[in-house]
Order: sequence, then structure tokens, then C-alpha cells
Amino acid sequence: MSDKTPSFKSLSSLEDFIAPYRVSSGDQFKIKHHDPADTQGLSLEKGRARDFLEKGVDELSSIQERLYADNRWSVLLVFQAMDAAGKDGTIKHVMSGINPQGCQVHSFKAPSTEELDHDFLWRTHCRMPERGRIGIFNRSYYEEVLVVRVHREMLERQGLPPRLIGKSIWDERLEDIAAHERYLGRNGTRIVKFFLNVSLEEQRRRLLERIDDPAKNWKFDAKDLDERGFWKDYMKAYQAAIRATATDDAPWYVVPADQKWFARLVVMTAVITELKKLDLDFPKLDEVDREKLLGMRERLADD
Amino acid sequence: MSDKTPSFKSLSSLEDFIAPYRVSSGDQFKIKHHDPADTQGLSLEKGRARDFLEKGVDELSSIQERLYADNRWSVLLVFQAMDAAGKDGTIKHVMSGINPQGCQVHSFKAPSTEELDHDFLWRTHCRMPERGRIGIFNRSYYEEVLVVRVHREMLERQGLPPRLIGKSIWDERLEDIAAHERYLGRNGTRIVKFFLNVSLEEQRRRLLERIDDPAKNWKFDAKDLDERGFWKDYMKAYQAAIRATATDDAPWYVVPADQKWFARLVVMTAVITELKKLDLDFPKLDEVDREKLLGMRERLADD
Repeated sequence: MSDKTPSFKSLSSLEDFIAPYRVSSGDQFKIKHHDPADTQGLSLEKGRARDFLEKGVDELSSIQERLYADNRWSVLLVFQAMDAAGKDGTIKHVMSGINPQGCQVHSFKAPSTEELDHDFLWRTHCRMPERGRIGIFNRSYYEEVLVVRVHREMLERQGLPPRLIGKSIWDERLEDIAAHERYLGRNGTRIVKFFLNVSLEEQRRRLLERIDDPAKNWKFDAKDLDERGFWKDYMKAYQAAIRATATDDAPWYVVPADQKWFARLVVMTAVITELKKLDLDFPKLDEVDREKLLGMRERLADD
Repeated sequence: MSDKTPSFKSLSSLEDFIAPYRVSSGDQFKIKHHDPADTQGLSLEKGRARDFLEKGVDELSSIQERLYADNRWSVLLVFQAMDAAGKDGTIKHVMSGINPQGCQVHSFKAPSTEELDHDFLWRTHCRMPERGRIGIFNRSYYEEVLVVRVHREMLERQGLPPRLIGKSIWDERLEDIAAHERYLGRNGTRIVKFFLNVSLEEQRRRLLERIDDPAKNWKFDAKDLDERGFWKDYMKAYQAAIRATATDDAPWYVVPADQKWFARLVVMTAVITELKKLDLDFPKLDEVDREKLLGMRERLADD
């Protein structure tokens, strides 16, 4: 990597680095303008990439400590992607090393019967991070306008009253998601959403690897092959979702994901940048409370 | 009671009876246009009032059975009122007799520390009724724009980041509640909201009774006395809440509550009327499934 890697000391340097990937207004957004293989001309030197991530984890840990002490904001990181785009690996490499007491990861698979007996935001809302914590959603309520939109037969199985399944259901769901996120933002949840943007060709390479490498066989799922046939539909659904829900308070990051090291670098930088914008600080005592505390210090010293 | 009491056989007769209390659009709504002592000129004959309620419970039980079998809609009944307006008694008299397997009552008191560590809709959303069930909220998320609005110091204790507490917070909360209810409606929850409208004078009478009758002493709370001083503020807050959130899909009923028997009659009629509008029926089998079922009948008969 060249010296173009951003410095964690400078917020503007971080912001510049991730600006091409941050989508905060959906009107003009087109996925095809985003190159999955982009690395900003940086080339991999394994040691330096690792070094950067380590520094990032230190920085993130220190921000998380303040988030926890402040106990006002919560942070929700949403990860969405096609199969084999690197969600699990990114979460592992970016978030490992921070205090698990302040961090909760939830993976959302196909909904259970109990979950289907509720509205589609129910299962994720119940698992929202508390104030002072970072919550990570590995897949999320966005599946409701992605996989369910691509495979409409799933919608039929959701138990909705038939008269509520109309032509505008996807627009309604996107409107409801946007309203839900606006509401959460107003109540102290900072939402940051990541779309790990892998190419069809790079996905093919990774799926082949899952077959060829016996240690990765467990990750291979025959369904992933079938899903490749719906690639265009998925891209359309992602584009519609990002268009309808990208805001400055709940931005999307469209992360070039063909190079894993670069995807991690972007995600790490984005998380740190977004958290630095919150007014986090260790709670300060006013003079009266500070006096009281000093009084208690004396009692302890003389004990 | 005269013959003006509605018949459960006729939806239009039910609708006529409750029309004066149903608010489905907030623009013109004013609380002062609603008389807490209204009984539509009916006078109490205890036996006939009880008889009407009993018939209502039968009707409601039969609708609930279909709701449960259909397993698509859920129903949320929200009860809000000043102290001693009769929430508990109304819930007891209207809902007793229906199958508790299909009915869940939640009473929301002052939020816990865990609840305050989340957004204000979190605790109620997690307790939403499942498809096929009736959920009853004895107080609800509306407290966030009622008691918290009247006693602003409560807002300061909610752990919100200071920069999010602005002048428009009540409008934002009302907008968020309206959006939440619209979303729930789109996903199969029928919401009906009741404001039991008691007068200041009738409340005084009931609080005195709680002091004078030793069997009711446990219900008396000194705080209720203080709250009477904020009556006007409460009425303003209720009016603003009803204005911002009354829709045809999630209507408010402003129930005259000075006469308990009349309040119950109105609530019972409203619940039945709203449920009758849903397309509830026992699930019907198509011909193929019906054939299969008959095949199984034969096997069982020959067993």
C-alpha cells in the first residue's frame, strides 16, 4: 500500500478516503457506477494492510470505550451482500479485538414461525443494540426487500392477509424501512449500512475455492449456485433499496469487495469515521459532584 | 336502556351507534366537543346493560375464534386515559369470557433501565400480538407524548444524546408513532385506540371513593392528586396525539367515560365493529386438499 492510506488522526483524511463509497442520498445512485475491483490504485502489501487494520482496531476500541461510558448513543452496523462477498470475514477482521461486552452480533437467517407471526421489522427491532453498544446485523430487515423481492413466492408464505399484498408492497416496505431508520436515528441509534459489492466473476472464483479446498467445503451451499441465475434481479433490488434508504444519518457504503483486504480497510475506515462524528466523551462531573467525589476520596484515604 | 342499543347482527347499526366517538381523521378534532357524560339519552337498567355485554362477549368470542384460525391478522387494542377513568374495569368487563389463549394483556408502567436503554417504541414493539391474536395495551407508547410531554423532566432522564432533544421532538415522536402504526397496519395488525374520556369532576368523585372505601384504598396513589393540577396540559397533549395519529386504519375512539356502563358498551361495540371489517373466515381447503382429507378419513374409519 502506498502512503495514500488514511491517518486515523485526521477526520478529513478519513472522510476523503471513503467519500467515493459513501451514499447519503439515493436519487442518482447506480450500482454500475461502482467497480467491485476498485482499490484506489493501492496494491497489497500484506504486512502494511495488517498493520493498518491493527491500528484501526486500537482506534475503534478507544472510541467504543467512550461510547460505553457516555451511554447515550447506540450504533448499528448492517452488513448486506451476495453470498461469498466476505461478510463474515469482514466482521471478524474489523471487529475482533474490541471489547465484546459492548458489542453484539446477530445473524439473521430464514425467519422462524414465531418471527413470521409478526411484522417483518419485529425480529430485528427486538435485537437493537442498547445505548452505549455497537450492534452488528449480519443480514437484516433488508432481506425483506432483497431475497423476498427476488423470490416472490417467499412473500406468499409470510402469512399476510391477502388484501395487503398489493403492487406497491416493495415501495411501501422501503418507505417503512426508511421511516424506521429515521425514527431510530432520532432516538439515538447511529445506523451505518454496508453493501459488500462483489463481482459475479469473483464470486465464481470463491465458490470454486469452497469446492476445491476441503477445509472450506462446509461453507458451500448448492443454493448459492442457483442464486447466481438471479444476479441481475438482486442488483436491481439492491439498487432500489439503497436509493430509497440512503440518508446522511443512515448512509450506505458500497464497498468494493473483490479484494478482501481493501474491503476491510474501507469498512474499518467508515466505522471509525462515522463514530468520530458523534459527540462522545467520558461523562464529566459538574463542580458540585466533583466536590462530593473528592470528599469520598478523603473518607477512603482515612479509612 | 331503550331499544336504541345496537344489534350485533347488523354492522351498520353498530357503526351508527359508535360513529360519534370514532375519530379517523384528526384535522378537526377537539376534545371539548366530546362530552364525558354522554349516554345518547340511554339510561341505565343494570340487567339490560349486563345482558348486552354478555351478548357482546359471545359475539367477540366467535370472531376471535375465526381470527385465530385464519392466523393472518393480529389486533391491537390500545387503552389510554387519565387515572380512575376505568381502563382496568373496561378491559375486564369487555374481554372477560374470551379465550385467553388468543389474547394477551400488557400493562406498561414507568420504563425500566433496560427499556430506557432502547428507543421508546422498543418495549411495545417486542410485545406486539402475533398473527391470530388480540393484544391489549393498558397504557402504551402514547405515554411518550402524554406524561413525558407534560412532565418534561422525564425526557431528560431518558438517556437521549442532548443534541437530539430539540424543539420539534413532540412533533417528531407523533410523526414516528403515526409511521409505526401505518407500517403495522400494512403488515396485518389492526390497531384500535381508546381514550376513556372522564371529566375532572367525575375523577374527583372516584378518587374520593378510593379513600372512603377501605376495599379500594390500595388503588389510591397520592400522585394522582398532583396530576389533577396538570389536567389542562394533559388534555392538550391528548388532543395533539389524537390529531396526529387518527386514521381510518388506526382510529381513535373518544369514549364518554363518566358512566362506566356506557363506556363499556361503546368499547365492546367498537371492538366488534372493527373486527367485523376484517376478512376473517375459517381457512377453506381447495379441492385437492379436501380430497386428501377425505382419503385420510377413510383410513381412520378403517383403522
